[in-house]
Amino acid sequence: MKYYAGIDLGGTFIKAGIVDESGNILIKDQVPTGRERPYGEIAKDMAKLVLDLAGRADIGIENIRAAGIGSPGIIDSARGVIMYNNNLGWNKVPLAAEVRQYAGIPVFVTNDANAAAVGESFAGAAKKYPSSVFITLGTGVGGGIVLDGKLFEGNRSAGAEIGHTVIRMGGEKCTCGRRGCFEAYASATALIRQTKRAMEKDKESALWRICPNIDDVNGKTAFDGAAAGDRTAQKVVKNYIGYLAEGVANLANIFRPNAIVLGGGVCAQGDTLLVPLRRAVSRKLYGGTKYAPVELLTASLGNDAGLIGAARFAQQQSGN
Amino acid sequence: MKYYAGIDLGGTFIKAGIVDESGNILIKDQVPTGRERPYGEIAKDMAKLVLDLAGRADIGIENIRAAGIGSPGIIDSARGVIMYNNNLGWNKVPLAAEVRQYAGIPVFVTNDANAAAVGESFAGAAKKYPSSVFITLGTGVGGGIVLDGKLFEGNRSAGAEIGHTVIRMGGEKCTCGRRGCFEAYASATALIRQTKRAMEKDKESALWRICPNIDDVNGKTAFDGAAAGDRTAQKVVKNYIGYLAEGVANLANIFRPNAIVLGGGVCAQGDTLLVPLRRAVSRKLYGGTKYAPVELLTASLGNDAGLIGAARFAQQQSGN
Repeated sequence: MKYYAGIDLGGTFIKAGIVDESGNILIKDQVPTGRERPYGEIAKDMAKLVLDLAGRADIGIENIRAAGIGSPGIIDSARGVIMYNNNLGWNKVPLAAEVRQYAGIPVFVTNDANAAAVGESFAGAAKKYPSSVFITLGTGVGGGIVLDGKLFEGNRSAGAEIGHTVIRMGGEKCTCGRRGCFEAYASATALIRQTKRAMEKDKESALWRICPNIDDVNGKTAFDGAAAGDRTAQKVVKNYIGYLAEGVANLANIFRPNAIVLGGGVCAQGDTLLVPLRRAVSRKLYGGTKYAPVELLTASLGNDAGLIGAARFAQQQSGN
Repeated sequence: MKYYAGIDLGGTFIKAGIVDESGNILIKDQVPTGRERPYGEIAKDMAKLVLDLAGRADIGIENIRAAGIGSPGIIDSARGVIMYNNNLGWNKVPLAAEVRQYAGIPVFVTNDANAAAVGESFAGAAKKYPSSVFITLGTGVGGGIVLDGKLFEGNRSAGAEIGHTVIRMGGEKCTCGRRGCFEAYASATALIRQTKRAMEKDKESALWRICPNIDDVNGKTAFDGAAAGDRTAQKVVKNYIGYLAEGVANLANIFRPNAIVLGGGVCAQGDTLLVPLRRAVSRKLYGGTKYAPVELLTASLGNDAGLIGAARFAQQQSGN
């Protein structure tokens, strides 16, 4: 059996695990990121965690063939460099080389959404399918594209920015500077904004009973209101699914993957989200749904997707 | 030197050429398609034209390693089958097998926009770049995606339908059934509609002098009016470039290719189109233009792109 380390670098925690070549996690743990520290110290802690886990799993670092890191930000994965990470305040940080120095094994880095995409493709919801697009609905809309089992990142890993494709010209302002981005309509942040706006317009809505303080609105609020039969909430959910369907259908028409996998908190809604979304997307698929069907699924690995995907990415990149 | 045949199947003409392994056309010619005939006869004429050209070029069919066909419609390129072609009234036509029967060499089929994309990537405007997206602005908006020198078609060749991605939810009705598709805003057909609408709203516009009969409006009319200083025409051109920029930027953010190549009649405008388009797109590129730049170019092979690309596709598919 071959083993790899997967590392999920977050703003709060560094999570890591030892993963076998089939995508099973043998052991995992986490340590605080301590993001105010110099990157060298963070890199050292990442390596230390991997060495520690290898020891605890009785494998020995010499049997870990490579380590993969999923990191937020713009990553030049071929060079192992974090070009820019807002959250950690990093700029051109040679993270792969730094971690390798302490861990003594080959280290590879990719974007965290890409790592999750690889994880879901290799061992999760899209396991059966050669090609899949992963869309994560969180603070923003991130994504990863796996074509014939291989991660597609674009030139210098700057592609796959699926959240920053416009679905409504001139629409909502996006954090990227454009107007009308998929992210500005389909992220959890966008859903929260849509819910709050609807509440402000309808003071009679049951949403006010579910969430008396408007500052507490989250990605679940509108779905809870809709389930309780509130018309305003139902309209918010319907519109949200409509926005999501446009972006999903765009990706389906461009990549015509075997599957599109949705991740992020909103997906906890399961069929409440998926059933109407599938219906809406199927009407927008070019040439219909029978020829080259596109399965629409929710992610199955949860928080482990990034870790498993990072390990798989290391396996593929090291060719080992 | 290795030789391949490239065939461009159109509704009016079958064009074919003998192309060397560097993408140079040795000889080319065309015959009428006669699209009302059974497909077998059309296939026979395609083979006959190739055999004839091989003879005239003094190469001999035994030295032509494979033939490639660029065809309109939905093509299952792995199976060599035209799944659906509206223009020829074809449904599941096994074109590759049929032509091979008469020509006696391996035959491969891809979509015509894909063939042009491969042509421009291999021997045209994007020759220097490993990855490029080709966008053709004609009756519709077609496209082809070349990643690391290889055509990307999606599952069963049903992807790369870049014209059928929504840039303006709820907007103009598209031929595909959706509303607000890139094609409904950026095709030559869309530009003509936009020009006519502007003329109908402004009876004083100089566009009426340039084109007294509104039925004669073409993709050049608005550009001619803008060059003559007509404000209404300038607005049409400005808006059109704005629409085009949204779709181009979306593709840039998804694929982050080295280059995006525009083809179709509108591109005859050259810098009048390209300069403002580059400016608009650059503001929409995620993460800016310096890291992983995307060149915006016009096609350079003209009508030969499909023929050269079909030959190159045959070369790649035959592995020969």
